[in-house]
Amino acid sequence: MAEGGASKRMWGGRFEGSPGRALQEYTSSLPVDSRLYKQDIAGSIAHVHMLGAQKIIPAADAQALSKGLNTVRKEIDTGAFRFLPSDEDIHSAVERRLHELLGPEVAGKLHTARSRNDQVALDLRLYAREAIGDIGRAICRLQSVLLNLAQSHQATLLPAYTHLQRAQPTTLAHHLLAYVAMLQRDFDRVQDAYDRADIMPLGAGAVTATSLPIKREMVAAELGFGAISQNSMDAVSDRDFVVEIEAALALVMVHLSRLAEEIVLWATSEFDFVELPDEYATGSSLMPQKKNPDVAELVRGRTGGVFGALQAMLTTLKGLPLSYNRDLQEDKEGFFRAVDTALQSLDIMARMLSRVRFEVASMERAASDPALLATELAEYLVRKDVPFREAHEVVGRAVKRAASKKLAISSLTGEQWRSLHPAFGDDVEKLFDAHQAVTRREVPGSPGPRAIKRALLRGVLAVKRNQEWLKENTTA
Amino acid sequence: MAEGGASKRMWGGRFEGSPGRALQEYTSSLPVDSRLYKQDIAGSIAHVHMLGAQKIIPAADAQALSKGLNTVRKEIDTGAFRFLPSDEDIHSAVERRLHELLGPEVAGKLHTARSRNDQVALDLRLYAREAIGDIGRAICRLQSVLLNLAQSHQATLLPAYTHLQRAQPTTLAHHLLAYVAMLQRDFDRVQDAYDRADIMPLGAGAVTATSLPIKREMVAAELGFGAISQNSMDAVSDRDFVVEIEAALALVMVHLSRLAEEIVLWATSEFDFVELPDEYATGSSLMPQKKNPDVAELVRGRTGGVFGALQAMLTTLKGLPLSYNRDLQEDKEGFFRAVDTALQSLDIMARMLSRVRFEVASMERAASDPALLATELAEYLVRKDVPFREAHEVVGRAVKRAASKKLAISSLTGEQWRSLHPAFGDDVEKLFDAHQAVTRREVPGSPGPRAIKRALLRGVLAVKRNQEWLKENTTA
Amino acid sequence: MAEGGASKRMWGGRFEGSPGRALQEYTSSLPVDSRLYKQDIAGSIAHVHMLGAQKIIPAADAQALSKGLNTVRKEIDTGAFRFLPSDEDIHSAVERRLHELLGPEVAGKLHTARSRNDQVALDLRLYAREAIGDIGRAICRLQSVLLNLAQSHQATLLPAYTHLQRAQPTTLAHHLLAYVAMLQRDFDRVQDAYDRADIMPLGAGAVTATSLPIKREMVAAELGFGAISQNSMDAVSDRDFVVEIEAALALVMVHLSRLAEEIVLWATSEFDFVELPDEYATGSSLMPQKKNPDVAELVRGRTGGVFGALQAMLTTLKGLPLSYNRDLQEDKEGFFRAVDTALQSLDIMARMLSRVRFEVASMERAASDPALLATELAEYLVRKDVPFREAHEVVGRAVKRAASKKLAISSLTGEQWRSLHPAFGDDVEKLFDAHQAVTRREVPGSPGPRAIKRALLRGVLAVKRNQEWLKENTTA
Amino acid sequence: MAEGGASKRMWGGRFEGSPGRALQEYTSSLPVDSRLYKQDIAGSIAHVHMLGAQKIIPAADAQALSKGLNTVRKEIDTGAFRFLPSDEDIHSAVERRLHELLGPEVAGKLHTARSRNDQVALDLRLYAREAIGDIGRAICRLQSVLLNLAQSHQATLLPAYTHLQRAQPTTLAHHLLAYVAMLQRDFDRVQDAYDRADIMPLGAGAVTATSLPIKREMVAAELGFGAISQNSMDAVSDRDFVVEIEAALALVMVHLSRLAEEIVLWATSEFDFVELPDEYATGSSLMPQKKNPDVAELVRGRTGGVFGALQAMLTTLKGLPLSYNRDLQEDKEGFFRAVDTALQSLDIMARMLSRVRFEVASMERAASDPALLATELAEYLVRKDVPFREAHEVVGRAVKRAASKKLAISSLTGEQWRSLHPAFGDDVEKLFDAHQAVTRREVPGSPGPRAIKRALLRGVLAVKRNQEWLKENTTA
Repeated sequence: MAEGGASKRMWGGRFEGSPGRALQEYTSSLPVDSRLYKQDIAGSIAHVHMLGAQKIIPAADAQALSKGLNTVRKEIDTGAFRFLPSDEDIHSAVERRLHELLGPEVAGKLHTARSRNDQVALDLRLYAREAIGDIGRAICRLQSVLLNLAQSHQATLLPAYTHLQRAQPTTLAHHLLAYVAMLQRDFDRVQDAYDRADIMPLGAGAVTATSLPIKREMVAAELGFGAISQNSMDAVSDRDFVVEIEAALALVMVHLSRLAEEIVLWATSEFDFVELPDEYATGSSLMPQKKNPDVAELVRGRTGGVFGALQAMLTTLKGLPLSYNRDLQEDKEGFFRAVDTALQSLDIMARMLSRVRFEVASMERAASDPALLATELAEYLVRKDVPFREAHEVVGRAVKRAASKKLAISSLTGEQWRSLHPAFGDDVEKLFDAHQAVTRREVPGSPGPRAIKRALLRGVLAVKRNQEWLKENTTA
Repeated sequence: MAEGGASKRMWGGRFEGSPGRALQEYTSSLPVDSRLYKQDIAGSIAHVHMLGAQKIIPAADAQALSKGLNTVRKEIDTGAFRFLPSDEDIHSAVERRLHELLGPEVAGKLHTARSRNDQVALDLRLYAREAIGDIGRAICRLQSVLLNLAQSHQATLLPAYTHLQRAQPTTLAHHLLAYVAMLQRDFDRVQDAYDRADIMPLGAGAVTATSLPIKREMVAAELGFGAISQNSMDAVSDRDFVVEIEAALALVMVHLSRLAEEIVLWATSEFDFVELPDEYATGSSLMPQKKNPDVAELVRGRTGGVFGALQAMLTTLKGLPLSYNRDLQEDKEGFFRAVDTALQSLDIMARMLSRVRFEVASMERAASDPALLATELAEYLVRKDVPFREAHEVVGRAVKRAASKKLAISSLTGEQWRSLHPAFGDDVEKLFDAHQAVTRREVPGSPGPRAIKRALLRGVLAVKRNQEWLKENTTA
Repeated sequence: MAEGGASKRMWGGRFEGSPGRALQEYTSSLPVDSRLYKQDIAGSIAHVHMLGAQKIIPAADAQALSKGLNTVRKEIDTGAFRFLPSDEDIHSAVERRLHELLGPEVAGKLHTARSRNDQVALDLRLYAREAIGDIGRAICRLQSVLLNLAQSHQATLLPAYTHLQRAQPTTLAHHLLAYVAMLQRDFDRVQDAYDRADIMPLGAGAVTATSLPIKREMVAAELGFGAISQNSMDAVSDRDFVVEIEAALALVMVHLSRLAEEIVLWATSEFDFVELPDEYATGSSLMPQKKNPDVAELVRGRTGGVFGALQAMLTTLKGLPLSYNRDLQEDKEGFFRAVDTALQSLDIMARMLSRVRFEVASMERAASDPALLATELAEYLVRKDVPFREAHEVVGRAVKRAASKKLAISSLTGEQWRSLHPAFGDDVEKLFDAHQAVTRREVPGSPGPRAIKRALLRGVLAVKRNQEWLKENTTA
Repeated sequence: MAEGGASKRMWGGRFEGSPGRALQEYTSSLPVDSRLYKQDIAGSIAHVHMLGAQKIIPAADAQALSKGLNTVRKEIDTGAFRFLPSDEDIHSAVERRLHELLGPEVAGKLHTARSRNDQVALDLRLYAREAIGDIGRAICRLQSVLLNLAQSHQATLLPAYTHLQRAQPTTLAHHLLAYVAMLQRDFDRVQDAYDRADIMPLGAGAVTATSLPIKREMVAAELGFGAISQNSMDAVSDRDFVVEIEAALALVMVHLSRLAEEIVLWATSEFDFVELPDEYATGSSLMPQKKNPDVAELVRGRTGGVFGALQAMLTTLKGLPLSYNRDLQEDKEGFFRAVDTALQSLDIMARMLSRVRFEVASMERAASDPALLATELAEYLVRKDVPFREAHEVVGRAVKRAASKKLAISSLTGEQWRSLHPAFGDDVEKLFDAHQAVTRREVPGSPGPRAIKRALLRGVLAVKRNQEWLKENTTA
């Protein structure tokens, strides 16, 4: 792919022997890059429009090429196109077909002032922009599902966990909004990455551009790019945008894997916080009673593949001297895989969550454990001017005393509380209400009802902003 | 570190047995996080200012705490501070010392309305902002060195390589400006990452914030944060900013490793394009004649460590349920290592390059190989209306004919050229001048003299913009 | 480290300028490799013994050097040794001190027929052998703890999980023996790696050995190596053994992280399968009731660091031309870190597990869910010649029927069973006993009592074999 | 794949709703695991043979199943098999077809006493054994090519490089034998991995084996396994063998990437050490004169993908609780990719190297630089009882003196040598012969002619041993 490799027609003049079959199989990128045919043809059409406008090739030839390219695209769209064993990449396959359709006099002008080095960079950037659009839209859909659920579960209690130990009561809305926040960072990251992908590289040629009077801005404008690349050596060897998007997707998968882990936990008999929809769970080929959270497990398991793609691309780039090296052909397979995985995982999680049933009673039961209100007790003492460390110590002793008698901490009597610390008053019993405890938490970011209302509004507005950006910058 | 682990004083009330020494050694984070003492103390001071202003603790206590914290910082600054084996992290070490200095009545109020979960998130974000500033400044320094060199070498020819084969003549300025462009993307990426690090998490408490009337915006303002976190569960478990900065640093190292690879190549006897400064090369303990490009090799070799740190952090985060888990303690060691490596590598490359001597004559000799002008010949034919593919084929045959007679392609006669293709005129000989060939390349991004002038200006302006942003947002 | 870099004395003759401080800091490996002083000195002593025996240096000098080296080791052992800023690695520090002790006439002969390239390879291989011994012993200790627990819990039931859903009843012994099996593979892997680490590289010199009449087998014999390296270019550039050990440790950490995940799960209120020992759990700085499985979380979290070290080393090695390159200096930091992490994690898990209390009643309650016996029902039908797929389908319907009435599957009447399939007899009720179900499973690898007895014996014998190998091949 | 997921027929009894198309697409493993059809069917045939022999199913049914399975295999072999959208993995596709061929009464008995959990483990282990055989054979082929080349180039000089600086003269045979040594370690590693892959897991069932009287040893014997798995929970969740093989392949790729880097370097105009065969190089679509080392570049570039696959698998396994989790479905795609990449890369390198032309004259010219003999000079002095450090210093001064006059070190006169050190005699001039220098190096591992003869023999014997092991343990 790219500069190296090609059918006899394209660079064969130099060689006596014909490329061996082993070479062909090892070097061909067609199985991977045929996926870029739309981008490749769109780029070529913009290129020939410019060549014609600049009179580098006759206007009639430009028109014929443009028409021929559209024909080729339709052939591939409809499956009528026949790839040949000698087509080593999508670029040469398209050009080979063009030769058949238009003859060498016209088709032979397509590649004027262009190299596969800048051509493939263009194709991949066109793909990257679309991938960002797709990922952005999938993020918004999952955010919307989470916001809807949070809307419905503002009063549903469950324990907030730290170290997977029940820590304090919170609401399901609060819990789900944590994921909305993570996903918003994911959106912001791919949006930032977009600016660095949205650079038009064509015109860099093989490495030092061209002596022909091309007009790069015209190609950029036709393809809707925000800017053109500013150094031709960099343009043909830069794959930063691939790494950057893969890194952003790695974090998307981190977030999805955390959510997936929670679904797996919550679906256990032990937690029993969710009932999975039948359509999004599967059974066992051996154990008839099983209902497995396969989707969540697969989301979690596929996280590894995205990390691996990121690591692979970094490794491939490390230590490459300028400029284009054939190693860069390895930029696509892992990239496509990472985008597909993230996209499908965002999608399936949104679908599944929109159908999941939360076992509200079970969650509330878990949240009503009085031990979860120990912090309330400590803060109660703080409000009575007991230093926090002392308050913490006192409540720790209360927990221990209750545990030693196998009693809940809420069963201690007023007398017993006072014996632990004189600052305890009769109002201490009122603390043992998880709903009340949540209601007292209203600083920004808290699970209190007003804080959650504000967070919901903020989330909805963020999604709206995301969607507006997507509409302006990408096409669905 | 963070919520878990602590000296007996901090959470011992719950337990009968004393923590074993093996546990202490395994769980202590002090050897790593003691580096954050300035950030930890600055955060605590802002916190007690707020506690006092909000009357959560008496103003006098707030003042005493603030003063005590400053004392502790000075003790650590000067090396007077004694860490104890029971200090399990920097937070507890500082608080322990505060107890010694102020007694429990006052010192016991420091941790009011706070958990180590949000405290450590704050410390690490303060560090991250500073790290971005340092990295940004180091990027600018290296860009400036490269721009100066490019300024001086606008007319120095060398071959542009693809596949490490000489491809076309270019200028050293053009080559070096490719790295300026890469570094500018690096700058833009850490700048983007800054916004997501610049979020104040304190007030999230252990996981569901607090019932005490804290004022988070006040802490954020004192510490110069751009925003406060919007979900307390997310706030204590978010380490996206670590991954994002590490990913940006991985690309910084990719770029440095490419430059390092070129230094290693160029310093060989075979290329002989640079003479390394004695101070930045080393000899052999056995072979007296050796002069090794050790710095470049180490930059290249240390790239692996930064990739590894990124992978480690991603792996640690994968599949963690909400919210804080002790696994997150592993966020610092690799992060510090990655930042240090990138910072020192940027610095040493800038220093070394500013002292390197380019072997201009050797470079120009390599660039003057007539075969590098084959593309010129093809584009010459294109200008005479020969389809590019035909032109390419014709020139390929010329290359082959010359090679079969062991002659340079420039030695073909006018007659021979015409026998290859009738479009060749007498002016073909003028093409065999590498300087002229470069001069013909003036589309944006090219090595032509005017294009380079514009690129230099663009580079200088970018560095100036970078520096302005750094001045406004970070402190040296 | 290694060939490059050194104090002025060692290779300064070649250079005018003195190495800059930035260079010194960037290139020094002393902070990392000082840890290898014992290996370095042991290797040097064996080397001078050989030099003396081969009469390459006078016997008296060899004796003086050997004595001097012992003195240096004692100085470092006791902390009396002073490292200087100009000591750039452990090799030059030792040699510098030797010059002080013995004068240049004698000390100047230490490095005869040796380069830092082969010296550092030797040091690291000596370290690797010891590390394998330490890891092997730690694996055995954890295996023994698990075997002891399994011995005690042959009749303790708990559910075997697939997809974290309760699947079938099993015994805790069976569950724990799965980890004994994993650890045995870990042992076998480091044992295999030992053979490839146990190769003596000294004598390879800088890259093409030496013209002096050294006797490499003598050095190998003194240091107890199994073989000498067979190609000097390979010997100075081979770090396969580092990667191989790191990969084995990555799998050790995979296994420990799985066990750690289970400890975290089992310690939740929801599972409640274990009570952690107070000494191996920690509390919260804010929530007084918390008892966190920090050790297990840290083991799980530190897994990332070991994966990262492996990836870092692989990245560093990728694409290095022969032979020694300074990049290889980066072989130590991550390696030491990976070994330390694995060693400490094996140790702390063994300690913690030996003190954990299994909540047997809670486990058995979970295992007694009749739905876990669905497979028993299907196999019952198979024994009555019903095709398995039909049996599976029938039992699936039974599960569904029971669930629709919110009944346990065991509550169906004989009539109801027969209406589902005529092959059901009255004996179907006997199937609903988890203990009996386990007892029926006696094929090798099963949880049945006889199978477990055999597995226990097999485990004990394996540990004994491991220990014997350790005794023969390594020193504690 | 594995336990979860399946067509309605296999586990549908439990669910009301039909699996959504999104679920089907997300969870299907057929596109990946259809590649395992031969292994899957071979395993099933062994399984039904055993079921029949143990009278768990009637002998006639076993025979019918066996015959039907052979029919299905032939259908897939010939492309006659039609996969359906509802076939979610290769196991269910085969069983579905068997139902069509044999009807439910017989086909419904195939899955007796088996789960997809143990079935897929079996399939993957059968594949792993074959992959090791293929990799082993490809290693041997490349070793043989290298040994042949080394045989022919025992007297061909080239510089041995350290830090990519010319260090000392050596022979091409010596250089190539370094790779033979690396590849031998690769062979040994996959051979070691074989033992841990060669374990028969069937009979583990879903997780706790089965109550039916299966005979696992019989299945193992039919499939040629060396042992059976010893713990059923481990058997269904163990993927160590995948990681272990991937780690071994990562090192194979490290070695190939080093060789590839050297090919790329040697093929430059600057080194000019090799001329690539036309069939294994490619040209440029733009620059007619180019001849690019694409194969070597792709080998180097694809190294990243194998590292990524290793990292992905490790990440996926990290922290999974026992036993089978659907995450494990992600064990195949990266594994297949890593095996294919390593296999094809070994193969193409062997093919290419067997056709490469070494530019012997160019290599010898580079090796004849007198500065490469500086070590000879130092060792000359050592033989005259000058301490090595002093000798090193003296030669360093000679190098510097010669360089300052822009003379080769060999041009110093006897007088000048003596003025540098009195130990220099008239015989010093004889040292400046690279061939002689190599000849003096005969300790094991050196480039001296006798040492190389021994090394060649050792290499040939090793390959023979490798091939014998392959013949005994694997099938081509």
